[in-house]
Amino acid sequence: MADPRFFERAGPLTLADLARIAEAEIGVGGAPGMLYRDVASLAAAGPEEVTFLDNRLYAPDLAGSRAGACILHPDLASRAPTGMAVLLTATPYRAYAAVAQAFHPLPKRASGIHAAASIDPSAMIGSGVLVEAGAVIGERAEIGEGSTIHANAVVGAGVVLGAGCVIGAGATLSHCILEAQVTIYPGARIGQDGFGFATDAGRHVKVPQLGRVLIGEGTEVGANTCIDRGSAGDTVIGPGCMIDNLVQIGHNVRLGRGCVIVAQAGISGSTRLDDYVVVGGQVGFAGHLHVGAGAKIAAQSGVHRDIVAGQTVGGYPAIPIVEWRRQVAMLKQMARKKGG
Amino acid sequence: MADPRFFERAGPLTLADLARIAEAEIGVGGAPGMLYRDVASLAAAGPEEVTFLDNRLYAPDLAGSRAGACILHPDLASRAPTGMAVLLTATPYRAYAAVAQAFHPLPKRASGIHAAASIDPSAMIGSGVLVEAGAVIGERAEIGEGSTIHANAVVGAGVVLGAGCVIGAGATLSHCILEAQVTIYPGARIGQDGFGFATDAGRHVKVPQLGRVLIGEGTEVGANTCIDRGSAGDTVIGPGCMIDNLVQIGHNVRLGRGCVIVAQAGISGSTRLDDYVVVGGQVGFAGHLHVGAGAKIAAQSGVHRDIVAGQTVGGYPAIPIVEWRRQVAMLKQMARKKGG
Amino acid sequence: MADPRFFERAGPLTLADLARIAEAEIGVGGAPGMLYRDVASLAAAGPEEVTFLDNRLYAPDLAGSRAGACILHPDLASRAPTGMAVLLTATPYRAYAAVAQAFHPLPKRASGIHAAASIDPSAMIGSGVLVEAGAVIGERAEIGEGSTIHANAVVGAGVVLGAGCVIGAGATLSHCILEAQVTIYPGARIGQDGFGFATDAGRHVKVPQLGRVLIGEGTEVGANTCIDRGSAGDTVIGPGCMIDNLVQIGHNVRLGRGCVIVAQAGISGSTRLDDYVVVGGQVGFAGHLHVGAGAKIAAQSGVHRDIVAGQTVGGYPAIPIVEWRRQVAMLKQMARKKGG
Repeated sequence: MADPRFFERAGPLTLADLARIAEAEIGVGGAPGMLYRDVASLAAAGPEEVTFLDNRLYAPDLAGSRAGACILHPDLASRAPTGMAVLLTATPYRAYAAVAQAFHPLPKRASGIHAAASIDPSAMIGSGVLVEAGAVIGERAEIGEGSTIHANAVVGAGVVLGAGCVIGAGATLSHCILEAQVTIYPGARIGQDGFGFATDAGRHVKVPQLGRVLIGEGTEVGANTCIDRGSAGDTVIGPGCMIDNLVQIGHNVRLGRGCVIVAQAGISGSTRLDDYVVVGGQVGFAGHLHVGAGAKIAAQSGVHRDIVAGQTVGGYPAIPIVEWRRQVAMLKQMARKKGG
Repeated sequence: MADPRFFERAGPLTLADLARIAEAEIGVGGAPGMLYRDVASLAAAGPEEVTFLDNRLYAPDLAGSRAGACILHPDLASRAPTGMAVLLTATPYRAYAAVAQAFHPLPKRASGIHAAASIDPSAMIGSGVLVEAGAVIGERAEIGEGSTIHANAVVGAGVVLGAGCVIGAGATLSHCILEAQVTIYPGARIGQDGFGFATDAGRHVKVPQLGRVLIGEGTEVGANTCIDRGSAGDTVIGPGCMIDNLVQIGHNVRLGRGCVIVAQAGISGSTRLDDYVVVGGQVGFAGHLHVGAGAKIAAQSGVHRDIVAGQTVGGYPAIPIVEWRRQVAMLKQMARKKGG
Repeated sequence: MADPRFFERAGPLTLADLARIAEAEIGVGGAPGMLYRDVASLAAAGPEEVTFLDNRLYAPDLAGSRAGACILHPDLASRAPTGMAVLLTATPYRAYAAVAQAFHPLPKRASGIHAAASIDPSAMIGSGVLVEAGAVIGERAEIGEGSTIHANAVVGAGVVLGAGCVIGAGATLSHCILEAQVTIYPGARIGQDGFGFATDAGRHVKVPQLGRVLIGEGTEVGANTCIDRGSAGDTVIGPGCMIDNLVQIGHNVRLGRGCVIVAQAGISGSTRLDDYVVVGGQVGFAGHLHVGAGAKIAAQSGVHRDIVAGQTVGGYPAIPIVEWRRQVAMLKQMARKKGG
């Protein structure tokens, strides 16, 4: 059960409610009027709680679960123990998200400006905005309606936030324009100078960084992630992207719609990722590359060349994933033979 | 000598004092009444200073050192130059820690709330707590006695800190419960949403993250490190862990007691490390893995499979370290032959 | 054109002005009196704007550019389309930096202490210093003349900043001394305890970290980068270094003059880099190594041994780059043969 110190809870909800919210079907034997109080993990859920099974790795744990109900794929329905109601859907994780949200609606948010926030008189603050203690909003910044600026965040001069943006505690923004519903996690750094300098007779001379960072609607930027602004053009992050923690995005990088960038990946300057590219954790990209739509890069890979749309690559340097797997297997076999 | 701008100094201390503090034996020729004023590195120490030798890589530097005394292993005693007193112990680094602490006791800490801190009236602040300027403490947060909240740190609503915790400057905490004596370094991010979303028809839908972060007694979390809260259960960090800077720890990860995680490592969601696992710098783990107690992972490895207790692995993907070393040597030899 | 929300603009400037500023020669057909209004990228520049071509990868784009003038190497002059003025120089990127700076002089900076900054009465603040809202300056800290402390940054007790330093928003400094003109980007962490502990009977005992961080003139430290202070001696960063975002620098590391460290690299404790070493992104170093002047380390390499001056290495573990490339090619060929 979610800790009430941190999470509000609605409910209870009937199995019929849950089926509707989850867009799922009640499996054989489920009682539509049965009441449930919360969601919980497969291992922790009790008889009054709803769980889900998405990763088939955990299917063997189903038999031992005490959950009152489980959202899962119809294929796995027969593996639920007696007495566990099942909600059947082809997309159990998506369905669970909806159910969890129903039990834990976002708390009714206060709005207003904390007395210990510092807001430049020239800034424009939309209606229903919440600014917490210690937040600093600079000259001519514009904060869209219903946005939240958490404690000790800094929104620099001229920065523009669309409606419903959330800026995490301690995050800092400069030289950037965010569309609506963008979420910036704590400690993220957006819009600082990129790593651009010219070396002249052993001296590194900084090149003025005259671009911006543009972030599309609904994108999330993880904790302590850094996105440098463009040098002459802009750094552009498309709408609906999910960017994890501690990611580095260099100047002039362009991400399409819906890209997923896992933690600690680094994308060097001027590299372009088309729509729905998926980048694993700790991947590194050289600069000035092009990655086609839907390409997937395995964790820790080092990408030194363009990648065509839809391709999956891995390794250091990155090559088509089947080739890389073949190399790994071959090496293993050879070393064993030699060692033997 | 430690810079008095930054460090207070006690002393002087006699060789006999030092032996007692270090739980070491005075070697042949050492004068128990001889006075020493500070600790210093092997290279920098002068006749009134105490140094130590732990890493045998530096043993050849012993002869040229001007240190008045040196803490070292009995095996190396004979390599100390004439006139250098020696303190003999099987654990010289541990002994040095005690001696350094004796010369530099932690300054008598002030307590009190700075006028420029923002503390919600519903927060509970223990006795002897120090809250520096710009720190923000949210609703219903509980700060254990003798804790320090450094400048511009943020302790979110409902967060609980045990006695003697230290929250570094600019760090941010939410949805977490810390036991006693936990140290969070500057800029660390604890308790934000994990990277959990369901993808539905090309749209990434956020899955509510309803867990917490629990951190055990005496654990340290490095600068700018991120620990996401659990999705349904909790993210759990055991007692006595040492976590370095810029580490990423995903939702639902569980670390046992005394784990060591070196800088820039990344542990993906739901992976479990048992007690005393040692993870090298920049190591990456896939999610949903299990690593047995006492396992060691070489720096930069990529871990894709479970690791049994006590095993040492390396490489990308990680394999038993002797196998990996054999592969590296074999490749080198083959490429040389071919190239030749 | 640079967005006037964020950047001030001077000008217009004549081609003759630009040639003088860029230390370049006007190519055949250029009209010295022609006026230009701004800089822009090769792709975006229009007839009243100046662009540059440095990376020869983009030479084919020259023909389609609408830029009024282009700074480039004399070798490429003939590839400029008719009507585009050319400014010829052997160092086009350096020349562009000067021209961009001429169009966008740094705004006349205000000075003064924001009412919402917290400055200890014992701190010494030089003339012309700007301290933004929420910044915190500790006891006995010294801020050199003309320095800027951005919003919510923390300068700890005793810290010394030379003239003209810039401390980014949300950055935190302790136990460090910065020479003149040092720039610390947002969220960087300087001077916290290093990762030093002695393990005794399963317990990790912290070793007091009694050194400092010293940073040389003109060095830049990227966003969310961490530099730990020395344990007994100091951590020393030479003058004129360029350190990118999310870099980890351990205790007692020493960097010479003009080193370049790309994003997410990690340098373990006590490793020394001589002058002008270039470290690629995500590179990792073991501790206690020595890297000679001018060495270059390819991105993502793992350095386990000393590197001699001038050498270029790559791979995991890192070896001379030609050897590494040979291994990569050999593996590829072998796996294809086997797979085929």
